[in-house]
Amino acid sequence: MDENSFVKFLKSEFPFEDGIGIGDDTSIIKKGDGFQLITKDILIEGVHFDQSYFTPEEVAARALAVNLSDIAAMGGKPEYFFLGIGFPENFKDEKLFRFFKELKNRSNKWNVKLAGGDISSSPDKLFISITMVGSSINPIRRDGARTGDLIGISRVTGESSLGLELLKRGIDIPYYSGRHKVPDPELASGNIFSGFVNSMIDVSDGLVIDLGRIMDNSNKGARIKYENIPVTEDMRTICEKYGLIETDHVLAGGEDFSLLFTISSDKEKEMKKSAVKYHIIGDVIDGEGVSIEYHGREFEPERKGFDHFE
Amino acid sequence: MDENSFVKFLKSEFPFEDGIGIGDDTSIIKKGDGFQLITKDILIEGVHFDQSYFTPEEVAARALAVNLSDIAAMGGKPEYFFLGIGFPENFKDEKLFRFFKELKNRSNKWNVKLAGGDISSSPDKLFISITMVGSSINPIRRDGARTGDLIGISRVTGESSLGLELLKRGIDIPYYSGRHKVPDPELASGNIFSGFVNSMIDVSDGLVIDLGRIMDNSNKGARIKYENIPVTEDMRTICEKYGLIETDHVLAGGEDFSLLFTISSDKEKEMKKSAVKYHIIGDVIDGEGVSIEYHGREFEPERKGFDHFE
Repeated sequence: MDENSFVKFLKSEFPFEDGIGIGDDTSIIKKGDGFQLITKDILIEGVHFDQSYFTPEEVAARALAVNLSDIAAMGGKPEYFFLGIGFPENFKDEKLFRFFKELKNRSNKWNVKLAGGDISSSPDKLFISITMVGSSINPIRRDGARTGDLIGISRVTGESSLGLELLKRGIDIPYYSGRHKVPDPELASGNIFSGFVNSMIDVSDGLVIDLGRIMDNSNKGARIKYENIPVTEDMRTICEKYGLIETDHVLAGGEDFSLLFTISSDKEKEMKKSAVKYHIIGDVIDGEGVSIEYHGREFEPERKGFDHFE
Repeated sequence: MDENSFVKFLKSEFPFEDGIGIGDDTSIIKKGDGFQLITKDILIEGVHFDQSYFTPEEVAARALAVNLSDIAAMGGKPEYFFLGIGFPENFKDEKLFRFFKELKNRSNKWNVKLAGGDISSSPDKLFISITMVGSSINPIRRDGARTGDLIGISRVTGESSLGLELLKRGIDIPYYSGRHKVPDPELASGNIFSGFVNSMIDVSDGLVIDLGRIMDNSNKGARIKYENIPVTEDMRTICEKYGLIETDHVLAGGEDFSLLFTISSDKEKEMKKSAVKYHIIGDVIDGEGVSIEYHGREFEPERKGFDHFE
């Protein structure tokens, strides 16, 4: 069983009548004139980060950022959050204080408040769980793609996984390491997109896998053209230098937290007039899955993206 | 630094203007005519439970119960929750399904809904984080104790820690093991208490330590009489049989999730007429800390309760 199948199983076992429950970037619960958005992302040492190349400050920043990105993917505004932390002996005292100091700095920067949580010791691994609460008048779901929609992406993908790959080889290029360690949640862009788009998701597990989630939830298919996906010259150079496969990182690299969306061509003409940046990389068709054209041919990527069940 | 001092540090570093943040059983956020209650409790294998004597079903039930107890301690009604789970290789597949099946059973029993969350693999330990959302018109805080209040407790304490102690010795007496593995959140009693009491908390870390938290937050002191604390004859017999110190379990045993409260004597006269069960064990005085009278003398317990920072 893969992760998508397991989420489907949970969706059917746990119906939620008070709003939208399992299956999107955040849950959506009616509140007053708008909606309350709630998301929960966990970070586990040895799976999501490694203390050998993450400082306590970077762990704190990353934990907040990945949760904020889920709110951004709904076009929402983050408000407050709850932190659960299990700290091993090696994270006690000084590191724990550094973690909370940075959590405070980042909370101020991103304008969210810590509202509660739970602290525990942990046998050997650092474990972090954040539940982020936000709001939106018009939350954008991943099931709204329509045939004929254009597919857009807010910025490059693959930089985070490239940074991680290099770190694993002991190569620390600050720009790419930083893209991996402390992603930048696209709160401002997400908020602007939400006025125009039909569906949206953040790229947490890889461009193809996450675009596939929009298609799966919308019962549509996607066609994208590799040449339209933004890739920097610098990234090309780095990939060549270290013998890394560019398409793997761009198509299957997770945790860039770029925003992927689908939008009608009329709305896209309107959105183009705003200051928000994005790239159109393909379109939505009747069908299923994600097909990729590269050098004028169907392209099958080697790497598929990250799956916790495999 | 101990746990209480660390929580004080966090309270001062992370002020929360939209309601009550860090420091009570749940956070309290104004919503419509009432309040939204949000709490987060984490469970870590090797700290809060051990797979050698917890089944997947018991872990699921316990994770829900401890969070529900926090809502009960505010006198609130639980509504929906978010689950974060990091599962090691040995919990994959069959055990994970058993966990979710029981989570569904218990959700139905306790009338709460799973509204979202996050699933991840984990290197070797099972990690669980639940964020529970509830509501209340009149949430009861731990800072409301007044001089002259009576101190009440909903039911016995020490049974959970007795059950754990026996399990550690390889002795499984189902009643006590069950009190440890799947605590019973006092939602109904908590709701009735909330119409009468001035302050309330659930006994998660031990009667003395948790009563101390009410006193500390209310700037008062407590006097309790050991003879007034309910202890069953059966528990006395078990303690004698296995050479265990009864007062340690009753005063410092954690995780019974009984409710501790303070109430004016007038209100207590009214509450007595309702069907709710409780025991008056002492009173609130000007001063600080918790003093215990036993056999007509000041009594100093050996064990102090659980502290994650020690």
